[in-house]
Amino acid sequence: MALVVVGGVAAGLSAAARARRLDARLPIVVLEKGPVVSYGACGLPYLIEGRVREAADLIVHTPEYFRQERNIEVRTGARVAAVSHPRREVELESGERIRYDRLILATGARCDTSAIAGADQPHVFALHTLEDAERLRAFLRDRRPRRAVVIGAGYIGVEVADALSRNGLRVTILERGADVLLRDDGPFSDAVRRTLETHGVELRCGVDVESIEPDRVAGAPCDLVVVAAGFKPNVDLATSAGVAIGRTGAIAADDHMETNVHGIFTAGDCAETMHLVSGRPAWIPLGTTANKTGRVAGANAAGGRERFAGVVGTSIVGIFGTAFATTGLSVAQARAEGISPVSARIDSLSRPRYYDGVNTTVELVADGATGRLIGGSVIGEDGAAGRINVIAAALHARMKVEDFAAVDLAYSPPFSTVWDPVLIAAQQLSKQL
Amino acid sequence: MALVVVGGVAAGLSAAARARRLDARLPIVVLEKGPVVSYGACGLPYLIEGRVREAADLIVHTPEYFRQERNIEVRTGARVAAVSHPRREVELESGERIRYDRLILATGARCDTSAIAGADQPHVFALHTLEDAERLRAFLRDRRPRRAVVIGAGYIGVEVADALSRNGLRVTILERGADVLLRDDGPFSDAVRRTLETHGVELRCGVDVESIEPDRVAGAPCDLVVVAAGFKPNVDLATSAGVAIGRTGAIAADDHMETNVHGIFTAGDCAETMHLVSGRPAWIPLGTTANKTGRVAGANAAGGRERFAGVVGTSIVGIFGTAFATTGLSVAQARAEGISPVSARIDSLSRPRYYDGVNTTVELVADGATGRLIGGSVIGEDGAAGRINVIAAALHARMKVEDFAAVDLAYSPPFSTVWDPVLIAAQQLSKQL
Repeated sequence: MALVVVGGVAAGLSAAARARRLDARLPIVVLEKGPVVSYGACGLPYLIEGRVREAADLIVHTPEYFRQERNIEVRTGARVAAVSHPRREVELESGERIRYDRLILATGARCDTSAIAGADQPHVFALHTLEDAERLRAFLRDRRPRRAVVIGAGYIGVEVADALSRNGLRVTILERGADVLLRDDGPFSDAVRRTLETHGVELRCGVDVESIEPDRVAGAPCDLVVVAAGFKPNVDLATSAGVAIGRTGAIAADDHMETNVHGIFTAGDCAETMHLVSGRPAWIPLGTTANKTGRVAGANAAGGRERFAGVVGTSIVGIFGTAFATTGLSVAQARAEGISPVSARIDSLSRPRYYDGVNTTVELVADGATGRLIGGSVIGEDGAAGRINVIAAALHARMKVEDFAAVDLAYSPPFSTVWDPVLIAAQQLSKQL
Repeated sequence: MALVVVGGVAAGLSAAARARRLDARLPIVVLEKGPVVSYGACGLPYLIEGRVREAADLIVHTPEYFRQERNIEVRTGARVAAVSHPRREVELESGERIRYDRLILATGARCDTSAIAGADQPHVFALHTLEDAERLRAFLRDRRPRRAVVIGAGYIGVEVADALSRNGLRVTILERGADVLLRDDGPFSDAVRRTLETHGVELRCGVDVESIEPDRVAGAPCDLVVVAAGFKPNVDLATSAGVAIGRTGAIAADDHMETNVHGIFTAGDCAETMHLVSGRPAWIPLGTTANKTGRVAGANAAGGRERFAGVVGTSIVGIFGTAFATTGLSVAQARAEGISPVSARIDSLSRPRYYDGVNTTVELVADGATGRLIGGSVIGEDGAAGRINVIAAALHARMKVEDFAAVDLAYSPPFSTVWDPVLIAAQQLSKQL
């Protein structure tokens, strides 16, 4: 028995570590195409900002650590060119072949810039790997750009815009769609826009960038461009091995993170997961899910029998100190899933006014037919993460709004109001059900 | 039809306001024995601390507000001496009688100092009403005491100790029991002790105070004493009206907050509530529960049919900037309920180290027989409220540890680690089940 893992960041190394825990003797090889493994990719914007001082601060473990402490062989610069499942072999670009009994595809995702002309210019960057971040930092330091365009208003796009703005650049974000942060949710997008604009970052939606000129993009002058759009799962290897791709375009997997090809598992940003609210496969590439699916894939590839419960799509992003958090379905997303949504949106204080409470916006969405809570969002500078997580737990438990409104949440003036904003929102929503 | 509410703080006024919403014409009278109504009692320690500048900042609404805006008659200084249910009358100390059809007893709780000799000295204070707080503030200002003894290490006791310490006093807390914050939980109490001691507050447990001497209590020298012990529900009026008292010593009520006497409802600190984890009535007097039970009692007294879901005993207290939060049952409490508990305690970072993460301690407790999550505690300076609330939601949903470990919580470096501390604790606990 031998396990080969393709991909050495969150999912791949979670898988390898978990497999090792279950089987102390299994030969495990992790193949990473890049020069480093095991880094906190979600920390890259903070490396650009300067809050994280050195790239090394984002590296959790080195290949040596895995070799010595975990008996896992981690190879960097090892790009897999092909998978031959009949022969149970991966072939590296170097021509080297490595046999496996079980294979885990943790090939991640990428920004596909192929549709954008001029994306290969030296002032154009992605922010997907530690190398990307180091290159961008060097550019900021050496070239001192003054105006930046960020293409894409997803998580990375707005985080990079924040980071560049804090470095003194004037930033314009160009987004193809009408909404931001991957949420089909007008009021939420409006709130993001207001926060960005308050801090001098311009957001232009409905702008489909086809080319990057040397000194401007879609009319916006700039001497730096970050492409944070066109995010796609890396599925070529999977396809070449006969692994089925799901309706979302990512690798389809069952709840053991096994693909349609027996013995090939998948995890992380390249994989579909089950959305527990819609009941349908979704592609929501996030670090949390990468770690969780990695664990499950690793356990099962090592002969275990673990199950990935699925996602509810919880996410949070900090923009100039305000948290924008979502979980489950927005009103528009619910409609797209054939649900008749009912929603309530409230503004309330995060804490008593006498204890420096600040405004918190909570929206909750219910299935009008069943009264079940199906989604929500929280916006605020104080306690938003905890509040979205309470909603996320309720989604996992398939709670009705009525029951959610009764949850016994903690209260003390330094932490919340006696009626927490999420409960006020639940009460409002209850009245409409 | 007429509604009389005895008690004009959180529960009583929640009840009156809710009754008014359901019935625009119902005559409603609220009788409050003190001089002010509708104040945030949980804010009193912050008035002592000085963070809240004036008592008026804690007052939410005045009697005039209720009269003019809600058509509710709120009478202060109106102490009820007796209830005659056969005649449907309350009798005030003044001799005045007021008729009711429905009665809500929101009589609250008190510190019973009758067992302590010398509690009537001028340097001895309680901190239960706004008047108490104002008297204590005046004493601090005028007498400049240097050493304080706080009797009782419940929420109010530790909050007052914190507040006095921040005013420059040396503080000793004397607690009769072995544990603090009403939690039978050794490691949790130890953590509270360490935080208190780090900030110069001495905690002595197992000290049963029988008398307060002019310059010392139980050997601890002091020129100020705050009694925050002997907390008891005010049930005399209820008893006189033939209302049954529950096993906890508080007023027994059904899930409509109606007592055994048809037409008499109860709410707030004087009332028992159903503990959803133990399945037994509990007396956990907290502001959140007072507001919730008040709403339900008010609705039902006005002819509605609402239900109080019960509590899981969630609470939080801030001590010198560190949150100590609990919900459900501790290991010892579970044993006392006949459950065989299994628990896991972990220390983890609240956020990545590169984003200023600080230590967070999470303990989770499960029922070893069923694998169900039955309680937990969270200690930390960052995000503890949100984390305890996620556990509380899981208790309401009767989640198993295994399912709780899979909850899709939000992650981004400014807010948490990729594996949130509560998930790490759940994983640890899962291994033992």
